[in-house]
Amino acid sequence: MCPCRDLLDMVASKWTALAIGALEDGPMRFGELKRRLDGISQKMLTQTLRTLERDGLVTRTVYPSVPLRVEYELTSLGRSVTEPLAALRSWAQRNYESVAEARETFDAAEPLGLEPAR
Amino acid sequence: MCPCRDLLDMVASKWTALAIGALEDGPMRFGELKRRLDGISQKMLTQTLRTLERDGLVTRTVYPSVPLRVEYELTSLGRSVTEPLAALRSWAQRNYESVAEARETFDAAEPLGLEPAR
Repeated sequence: MCPCRDLLDMVASKWTALAIGALEDGPMRFGELKRRLDGISQKMLTQTLRTLERDGLVTRTVYPSVPLRVEYELTSLGRSVTEPLAALRSWAQRNYESVAEARETFDAAEPLGLEPAR
Repeated sequence: MCPCRDLLDMVASKWTALAIGALEDGPMRFGELKRRLDGISQKMLTQTLRTLERDGLVTRTVYPSVPLRVEYELTSLGRSVTEPLAALRSWAQRNYESVAEARETFDAAEPLGLEPAR
Protein backbone atom coordinates (compact mmCIF):
# COMPACT_ATOMS: atom_id res chain seq x y z
CA MET A 1 0.00 0.00 0.00
CA CYS A 2 1.22 3.48 -0.88
CA PRO A 3 2.90 5.24 2.07
CA CYS A 4 1.22 8.39 0.78
CA ARG A 5 -1.95 7.22 2.57
CA ASP A 6 -0.94 8.69 5.89
CA LEU A 7 0.05 11.91 4.19
CA LEU A 8 -3.46 12.25 2.76
CA ASP A 9 -4.82 11.64 6.24
CA MET A 10 -2.56 14.32 7.66
CA VAL A 11 -3.15 17.16 5.20
CA ALA A 12 -6.90 16.65 5.15
CA SER A 13 -7.37 16.34 8.89
CA LYS A 14 -9.49 19.12 10.26
CA TRP A 15 -6.98 21.44 11.88
CA THR A 16 -4.11 20.95 9.45
CA ALA A 17 -6.43 21.69 6.53
CA LEU A 18 -7.67 24.82 8.33
CA ALA A 19 -4.15 25.99 9.22
CA ILE A 20 -2.95 25.52 5.64
CA GLY A 21 -6.00 27.44 4.43
CA ALA A 22 -5.29 30.33 6.82
CA LEU A 23 -1.60 30.48 5.89
CA GLU A 24 -2.56 30.89 2.22
CA ASP A 25 -3.00 34.56 3.11
CA GLY A 26 0.69 34.92 4.01
CA PRO A 27 3.06 34.51 6.99
CA MET A 28 1.32 34.66 10.32
CA ARG A 29 2.07 34.70 14.04
CA PHE A 30 0.72 32.11 16.46
CA GLY A 31 -1.83 34.47 17.97
CA GLU A 32 -3.27 35.50 14.64
CA LEU A 33 -3.54 31.87 13.51
CA LYS A 34 -5.31 31.00 16.75
CA ARG A 35 -7.88 33.74 16.15
CA ARG A 36 -8.42 32.53 12.58
CA LEU A 37 -8.84 28.90 13.60
CA ASP A 38 -11.81 29.67 15.74
CA GLY A 39 -12.20 26.96 18.36
CA ILE A 40 -8.69 25.49 18.33
CA SER A 41 -6.93 25.09 21.67
CA GLN A 42 -3.41 26.40 22.30
CA LYS A 43 -2.12 22.84 22.62
CA MET A 44 -3.80 21.60 19.44
CA LEU A 45 -2.49 24.56 17.42
CA THR A 46 1.04 23.95 18.73
CA GLN A 47 0.79 20.27 17.73
CA THR A 48 -0.73 21.10 14.34
CA LEU A 49 2.02 23.60 13.48
CA ARG A 50 4.70 21.21 14.67
CA THR A 51 3.32 18.44 12.43
CA LEU A 52 3.24 20.80 9.45
CA GLU A 53 6.78 22.03 10.21
CA ARG A 54 8.12 18.47 10.60
CA ASP A 55 6.50 17.44 7.32
CA GLY A 56 8.07 20.37 5.49
CA LEU A 57 4.83 22.19 4.70
CA VAL A 58 5.40 25.14 7.01
CA THR A 59 8.48 27.04 8.20
CA ARG A 60 8.80 28.59 11.62
CA THR A 61 10.99 31.68 11.71
CA VAL A 62 12.10 33.45 14.86
CA TYR A 63 12.90 37.14 14.51
CA PRO A 64 15.23 38.47 17.24
CA SER A 65 13.09 41.40 18.26
CA VAL A 66 11.92 42.21 21.78
CA PRO A 67 9.66 40.44 22.43
CA LEU A 68 10.65 37.64 20.04
CA ARG A 69 8.51 37.50 16.95
CA VAL A 70 7.76 34.01 15.58
CA GLU A 71 6.16 33.62 12.18
CA TYR A 72 4.73 30.62 10.40
CA GLU A 73 4.71 30.46 6.61
CA LEU A 74 3.85 27.89 3.94
CA THR A 75 6.83 26.39 2.09
CA SER A 76 6.55 25.76 -1.66
CA LEU A 77 5.58 22.17 -0.76
CA GLY A 78 2.87 23.56 1.51
CA ARG A 79 1.64 25.92 -1.19
CA SER A 80 1.43 23.01 -3.65
CA VAL A 81 -1.33 21.35 -1.60
CA THR A 82 -3.54 24.42 -1.23
CA GLU A 83 -5.34 23.95 -4.56
CA PRO A 84 -6.46 20.30 -4.19
CA LEU A 85 -7.28 20.97 -0.55
CA ALA A 86 -9.43 23.97 -1.48
CA ALA A 87 -11.32 21.81 -4.01
CA LEU A 88 -12.13 19.26 -1.31
CA ARG A 89 -13.08 21.98 1.18
CA SER A 90 -15.38 23.50 -1.38
CA TRP A 91 -17.03 20.10 -1.96
CA ALA A 92 -17.58 19.80 1.80
CA GLN A 93 -19.12 23.29 1.96
CA ARG A 94 -21.49 22.54 -0.93
CA ASN A 95 -22.57 19.15 0.42
CA TYR A 96 -22.63 19.13 4.18
CA GLU A 97 -26.37 19.77 4.28
CA SER A 98 -27.04 16.71 2.11
CA VAL A 99 -24.84 14.67 4.42
CA ALA A 100 -26.62 16.00 7.51
CA GLU A 101 -29.97 14.99 5.97
CA ALA A 102 -28.66 11.54 5.10
CA ARG A 103 -27.51 11.08 8.71
CA GLU A 104 -30.89 12.07 10.10
CA THR A 105 -32.65 9.62 7.83
CA PHE A 106 -30.22 6.85 8.66
CA ASP A 107 -30.44 7.44 12.40
CA ALA A 108 -34.25 7.66 12.33
CA ALA A 109 -34.40 4.23 10.70
CA GLU A 110 -32.46 2.72 13.60
CA PRO A 111 -33.91 4.58 16.58
CA LEU A 112 -32.85 2.21 19.35
CA GLY A 113 -29.45 1.33 18.04
CA LEU A 114 -30.96 -1.75 16.39
CA GLU A 115 -28.21 -3.05 14.22
CA PRO A 116 -29.36 -4.37 10.84
CA ALA A 117 -27.91 -7.71 9.88
CA ARG A 118 -24.60 -7.06 8.15
CA MET B 1 -17.02 27.68 12.11
CA CYS B 2 -18.40 25.77 9.14
CA PRO B 3 -19.91 22.41 10.11
CA CYS B 4 -18.42 21.12 6.85
CA ARG B 5 -15.11 20.78 8.72
CA ASP B 6 -15.93 17.37 10.08
CA LEU B 7 -17.13 16.25 6.68
CA LEU B 8 -13.74 17.12 5.18
CA ASP B 9 -12.11 15.14 7.97
CA MET B 10 -14.34 12.17 7.25
CA VAL B 11 -14.02 11.89 3.46
CA ALA B 12 -10.28 12.41 3.51
CA SER B 13 -9.53 10.00 6.34
CA LYS B 14 -7.39 7.13 5.20
CA TRP B 15 -9.85 4.28 4.90
CA THR B 16 -12.87 6.26 3.73
CA ALA B 17 -10.78 7.85 0.98
CA LEU B 18 -9.51 4.41 -0.05
CA ALA B 19 -12.98 2.85 0.01
CA ILE B 20 -14.43 5.67 -2.10
CA GLY B 21 -11.53 5.24 -4.53
CA ALA B 22 -12.16 1.49 -4.84
CA LEU B 23 -15.90 1.94 -5.34
CA GLU B 24 -15.22 4.27 -8.28
CA ASP B 25 -14.84 1.04 -10.26
CA GLY B 26 -18.45 0.05 -9.60
CA PRO B 27 -20.60 -1.83 -7.06
CA MET B 28 -18.64 -4.23 -4.92
CA ARG B 29 -19.13 -6.91 -2.28
CA PHE B 30 -17.54 -6.74 1.15
CA GLY B 31 -14.95 -9.41 0.37
CA GLU B 32 -13.76 -7.73 -2.80
CA LEU B 33 -13.49 -4.38 -1.07
CA LYS B 34 -11.49 -5.97 1.71
CA ARG B 35 -9.03 -7.41 -0.82
CA ARG B 36 -8.71 -4.03 -2.54
CA LEU B 37 -8.12 -2.18 0.71
CA ASP B 38 -5.02 -4.15 1.47
CA GLY B 39 -4.37 -4.05 5.20
CA ILE B 40 -7.82 -3.08 6.47
CA SER B 41 -9.34 -5.21 9.23
CA GLN B 42 -12.84 -6.69 9.01
CA LYS B 43 -13.98 -4.43 11.83
CA MET B 44 -12.49 -1.27 10.34
CA LEU B 45 -14.03 -1.95 6.93
CA THR B 46 -17.44 -2.55 8.53
CA GLN B 47 -17.14 0.77 10.40
CA THR B 48 -15.90 2.61 7.31
CA LEU B 49 -18.79 1.36 5.15
CA ARG B 50 -21.29 2.14 7.86
CA THR B 51 -19.99 5.72 8.14
CA LEU B 52 -20.21 6.14 4.37
CA GLU B 53 -23.71 4.65 4.30
CA ARG B 54 -24.89 6.83 7.17
CA ASP B 55 -23.51 9.94 5.48
CA GLY B 56 -25.28 9.11 2.22
CA LEU B 57 -22.15 8.48 0.13
CA VAL B 58 -22.65 4.74 -0.27
CA THR B 59 -25.70 2.48 -0.54
CA ARG B 60 -25.81 -1.03 0.81
CA THR B 61 -28.09 -3.35 -1.16
CA VAL B 62 -29.03 -6.86 -0.10
CA TYR B 63 -29.99 -9.23 -2.91
CA PRO B 64 -32.17 -12.16 -1.76
CA SER B 65 -30.06 -14.91 -3.23
CA VAL B 66 -28.68 -17.93 -1.39
CA PRO B 67 -26.32 -17.07 0.15
CA LEU B 68 -27.37 -13.42 0.51
CA ARG B 69 -25.44 -11.08 -1.73
CA VAL B 70 -24.67 -7.64 -0.31
CA GLU B 71 -23.29 -4.94 -2.55
CA TYR B 72 -21.91 -1.51 -1.79
CA GLU B 73 -22.15 1.27 -4.34
CA LEU B 74 -21.41 4.99 -4.48
CA THR B 75 -24.45 7.27 -4.51
CA SER B 76 -24.43 10.36 -6.72
CA LEU B 77 -23.28 12.31 -3.64
CA GLY B 78 -20.47 9.80 -3.22
CA ARG B 79 -19.51 10.07 -6.86
CA SER B 80 -19.38 13.87 -6.57
CA VAL B 81 -16.44 13.68 -4.16
CA THR B 82 -14.29 11.32 -6.22
CA GLU B 83 -12.72 14.04 -8.35
CA PRO B 84 -11.47 16.40 -5.61
CA LEU B 85 -10.42 13.38 -3.57
CA ALA B 86 -8.42 11.98 -6.49
CA ALA B 87 -6.65 15.34 -6.88
CA LEU B 88 -5.57 15.26 -3.24
CA ARG B 89 -4.54 11.60 -3.46
CA SER B 90 -2.46 12.41 -6.50
CA TRP B 91 -0.76 15.26 -4.64
CA ALA B 92 0.06 12.85 -1.80
CA GLN B 93 1.51 10.33 -4.25
CA ARG B 94 3.69 12.96 -5.92
CA ASN B 95 4.96 14.43 -2.66
CA TYR B 96 5.28 11.82 0.03
CA GLU B 97 8.99 11.40 -0.64
CA SER B 98 9.60 15.10 -0.08
CA VAL B 99 7.64 14.86 3.15
CA ALA B 100 9.59 11.80 4.27
CA GLU B 101 12.85 13.69 3.66
CA ALA B 102 11.59 16.71 5.56
CA ARG B 103 10.71 14.46 8.52
CA GLU B 104 14.15 12.89 8.57
CA THR B 105 15.81 16.29 8.56
CA PHE B 106 13.52 17.58 11.28
CA ASP B 107 14.00 14.53 13.50
CA ALA B 108 17.77 14.56 13.00
CA ALA B 109 17.88 18.15 14.22
CA GLU B 110 16.22 17.13 17.48
CA PRO B 111 17.81 13.75 18.20
CA LEU B 112 17.03 13.49 21.89
CA GLY B 113 13.58 14.94 21.81
CA LEU B 114 15.04 18.32 22.69
CA GLU B 115 12.17 20.69 22.30
CA PRO B 116 13.08 24.04 20.75
CA ALA B 117 11.64 27.03 22.56
CA ARG B 118 8.22 27.71 21.06
